[in-house]
Amino acid sequence: MNTNGCSNCAIRGMFFDFLDDPWKHAGMEHEAARFVRDGLLVVKDGIITDFGPYEEVSTRHSGVEITHIQDRLILPGFIDGHIHFPQVRVLGAYGSQLLDWLQQWIFPEEIKYADRDYARKAAGLFFDALLAGGTTTCQAFTTSSPVSTEEFFEEATRRNMRVIAGLTGVDRFAPKDFLISADDFYRESKRLIERYHGKGRNLYAITPRFAVGCTGEMMDRCRQLKEECPDCWVNTHISENPTEVRQAKEHFPDCTDYTHVHEKHGLLGPKFTAGHGIWLSGDEMKRFSKAGAAISFCPLSNLFLGSGLFRLGRAKDPEYPVRLSIGSDVGGGNAFSLVRVLEEAYKVGMCNNTMLDGSINPREQDLAEADRNKLSPYRAYYLATLGGAHSLYLDDTLGNFQPGKEADFVALDWNAGQAAMAWHQSLAVGEGGPATIEEAAQLLFGIMTGGDDRNVDETWIAGQRAYKKPAVSRE
Amino acid sequence: MNTNGCSNCAIRGMFFDFLDDPWKHAGMEHEAARFVRDGLLVVKDGIITDFGPYEEVSTRHSGVEITHIQDRLILPGFIDGHIHFPQVRVLGAYGSQLLDWLQQWIFPEEIKYADRDYARKAAGLFFDALLAGGTTTCQAFTTSSPVSTEEFFEEATRRNMRVIAGLTGVDRFAPKDFLISADDFYRESKRLIERYHGKGRNLYAITPRFAVGCTGEMMDRCRQLKEECPDCWVNTHISENPTEVRQAKEHFPDCTDYTHVHEKHGLLGPKFTAGHGIWLSGDEMKRFSKAGAAISFCPLSNLFLGSGLFRLGRAKDPEYPVRLSIGSDVGGGNAFSLVRVLEEAYKVGMCNNTMLDGSINPREQDLAEADRNKLSPYRAYYLATLGGAHSLYLDDTLGNFQPGKEADFVALDWNAGQAAMAWHQSLAVGEGGPATIEEAAQLLFGIMTGGDDRNVDETWIAGQRAYKKPAVSRE
Repeated sequence: MNTNGCSNCAIRGMFFDFLDDPWKHAGMEHEAARFVRDGLLVVKDGIITDFGPYEEVSTRHSGVEITHIQDRLILPGFIDGHIHFPQVRVLGAYGSQLLDWLQQWIFPEEIKYADRDYARKAAGLFFDALLAGGTTTCQAFTTSSPVSTEEFFEEATRRNMRVIAGLTGVDRFAPKDFLISADDFYRESKRLIERYHGKGRNLYAITPRFAVGCTGEMMDRCRQLKEECPDCWVNTHISENPTEVRQAKEHFPDCTDYTHVHEKHGLLGPKFTAGHGIWLSGDEMKRFSKAGAAISFCPLSNLFLGSGLFRLGRAKDPEYPVRLSIGSDVGGGNAFSLVRVLEEAYKVGMCNNTMLDGSINPREQDLAEADRNKLSPYRAYYLATLGGAHSLYLDDTLGNFQPGKEADFVALDWNAGQAAMAWHQSLAVGEGGPATIEEAAQLLFGIMTGGDDRNVDETWIAGQRAYKKPAVSRE
Repeated sequence: MNTNGCSNCAIRGMFFDFLDDPWKHAGMEHEAARFVRDGLLVVKDGIITDFGPYEEVSTRHSGVEITHIQDRLILPGFIDGHIHFPQVRVLGAYGSQLLDWLQQWIFPEEIKYADRDYARKAAGLFFDALLAGGTTTCQAFTTSSPVSTEEFFEEATRRNMRVIAGLTGVDRFAPKDFLISADDFYRESKRLIERYHGKGRNLYAITPRFAVGCTGEMMDRCRQLKEECPDCWVNTHISENPTEVRQAKEHFPDCTDYTHVHEKHGLLGPKFTAGHGIWLSGDEMKRFSKAGAAISFCPLSNLFLGSGLFRLGRAKDPEYPVRLSIGSDVGGGNAFSLVRVLEEAYKVGMCNNTMLDGSINPREQDLAEADRNKLSPYRAYYLATLGGAHSLYLDDTLGNFQPGKEADFVALDWNAGQAAMAWHQSLAVGEGGPATIEEAAQLLFGIMTGGDDRNVDETWIAGQRAYKKPAVSRE
C-alpha cells in the first residue's frame, strides 16, 4: 500500500501496544500488551520496518534520523469504528431519542453536504478534530449525496489517512432531499468504489445507513455491490434503540429478527460492521460471532441519546466472541476524543454490572459476564487500537508496532488534562514516568478517566507528524 | 456577611441567570431565566449592589471602575453540592462499586489527610481545580481527622470562598485509623463549629459520612450537635448503591427504610443534604420533599461507579418537589467540571426515559416524568446555580445577580472546548454572540455537551477575579 510517509526516519520514546486480546488473558491482561520504556520505531515510506528496545534496534540503523519524543506514552493511532462525517456541527444536539433526533437535527444538516463547498469546509474541520483526539483511522458514514463522499475521500487523501467510508444509502422514511433511489445508490457506489477504493489509503464501505431507512430493494442492491466488489467493507447500524428494533421487524416481516435482515441480504460476514448492537439478543450475538461480523460499540452516543447499555461482557463471551471496535458516533456521541469514549465504555460496563453482580438481585448474578464488562485500561486501549483493527480486518495493516504495519501513532501526555491531573497521576508513577507495564497502564487509565483530547500531544500519520497540540502558557 | 471583595467596582458583559425554577415553567422555561445582553453588575465589598442593562445601571454609578468582559456569557458561580475534599488524587479509580471502592482506594488516601502538610497541599490543589471548573461554592466532606477540616477551611478563608464543610464521622466498618469515636466526633465538631462556622464565608455542616458507617450512638451525637447548633447544615449520603441500601436496613433494624434512619435521629429537615438518593422509594422522596430536605444529584459519579440512574423526573414531581443540587462527587465522580457533570445529568435523564417513554414497554409509559427528566440548558444551569443555592438554603446569599447577593460568578467562553466547537456553536448564533435568551441557552447547552472546564475563562469570587484560564497559542 502506498503511504507517502517519511522516507526514512525513526522515533525514540516510550511505547505501549498490544499483541493479543486482553480478554483472553483475564487476571494477567498485561500479557496481551507490550511496553517498551526506551524504544525505537523505524519507519520507511510510512511503514514500520523495525521496532524494539532502543539499545538493540539503534545498532541496526546507524545514521537514521531520530526524533526523540520525551515524557509521552506512544500508542498506535486510535481507530474510530463508527462516526458520521456530516455531523461535526450538530454534535450533541438536544433532547430527542434516535428517530426524532434524526428528523429534527440530522436530516437538515446532512442535506447541506450536497453542497461541495460546505462539504469541503466540513471535511477539513472533521479531520482536524479526529487528529486532535488522536484518531488516525475511522470508518465513516457520509450522506446520500456523492459530493460528501468525494470530499471525505479527497480530504483523507490530502492527509494520507487510512479511512473507510462510503455513500450512505437511505431510500425511505426521510425528507425527499435526503433520499437516494436504490438504482442511483448502486450506480454512484460503483463509480465511487472505482474512483477511491484502494487508492492511496482509502477503503470503501458499502453503506446502507440502517435497515429501517432502506427498502428491500436497497438492501438487494447492497448485496449486489458486495458480490461484485467482495473486497469492499460493509458498514451500517443495528439495534441502537428499542423503537428502531420494533420498526425493523415491522418493515421486514419475513425476517425473524434485525440481524436476519442482513443475513438475508448476504451482508453479515467478514468486513461487515454494525454500529451499536445494544438490543441484540444472545442468539444474534452468536450469529455475529460465527459470521466474523463486527459491532462498533458507541457508549458516548448510547448514553447521550439514552439508547441503552451495550452488553459488552456478553459480546466478549469466550465461546462466541464478537469482533468489536469502539466508535465515537459523532454527532450522536458528543466528543471526537476516543479517550472520552473509553471513559463512557467503562461506565456502561459498571452500570451493567449493577444488574449482573448481585447488587440488585443476587439471584440474577452472572459474575463471569460481569467480569468481562470491566473495562481495564488494557481492554480499553486494545479496543481503540489493535481490537478496532481486528474488527475491521485491518490488523495486518494497523493496530500495533509490528514491522510491516503502517506507522500511525499518537503521543499521550498523561498529565495534560483537567487541573490537578498531574498530582492524580503521580499516585501511580514517580517523576521519571512509568517504570513498568502496570504503571503505564495505570497512567492510561488515568487518561481515560481524568483526561480527554488535551492528553493527545502529537498525532503522527505514516511516520509524519500531522498534529501538535498548541502550547498552553502556564503562569 | 463579611466578604472582603473589591471595595467598589462594576463588571460589564453578557449576563445569564435565573429568577425561578424552570421546571415550574415547562414549555416556557426561558420565563424562569434572565438574559441581559449588555449588562452591568455593580459590586461593593463583595456584594452586588445593582444589576441590569448597562444603559440604565451605568447612569446610576458614574465614576465606578468598569471591567468589560467581552464575548463571554457571565453566569452565577457554580455550586457543587457534594464533593470530597480528600479525594482529589484518587479521582476516577479503577474497577469497583461503592463499598469495595471505599476499602481499596478511598480509605488509604483519606488517612493521609491527618498529616497537616499533605492536607494543606491538597487543599491548594482542590480549590484550584474548583475554580478552574467555575465552581465558587461547594459543600464538602473532609475526613475523620480534624486536621483535614481545618486545612479545608483555612484555604477557603484565604480564597474568601463561600463553602460548607465539616468533620466527617465514621465509627464502624472501616480501618482503625479512619474511624473516630462518637464522643471525639462530638467534641471536635463542637470545637470546629466554634472556630469556623459563620467566620468569613465559612459555614459548618454536621457530617455523618453515611449511616452504614455510623453507629446509632454516632447518629445520636449528630442529633445532639444539630440541636445545640441549629444554624448548622447537615451533610451525608443516602441510597447510592443497592448493596448499601440493604446494609442500612440490616444495621438499623428498627428503621423502616434508609430515610427513616435520618428521621429517627432528627436530621431530615431544612439544611439537610444527602448525596445520591438513587434508590430512594417514591415514599422516601415525598418525605424529603415535605421535610424541606435536599438531595445532591451526582450523575458523573453514579455512572462511573455504576451506582444507577437517579430518578430526576420523580424528584421534580410538582406535587412533591425535592430540593436538588448537582454534585461532582469527586473522586467517585471523575471530573471537577460541573458542566461535565451536567452532561452526565442529561444522559441519566435520557437513559431513564428509555424506560419511561414507551421505548421498551409502551404499557409503562410515564410521559410526565419523562418530560421532567429532560435536562434542558435552563434546567441544567439552574441546578448548578440558583437551584443549588435553594437546595442549600443559601438562595438569599447566592445563585443569581440580585442585589444583596454575593458577587461570585463565572465567565464562559462558548467556543473554547474541543476542536470544531466554534463551528458547532455557530449553528446557534452569529458572529456577534447570542442575541436572544434562547440563543444564549443554546450556547450553554453546547458547553454542556461539547465543552468542559476549558470553557471556563474566568472565575470571580466576591467581585474579584480568582481564576483566569491560561492562554493557548493557536498557530
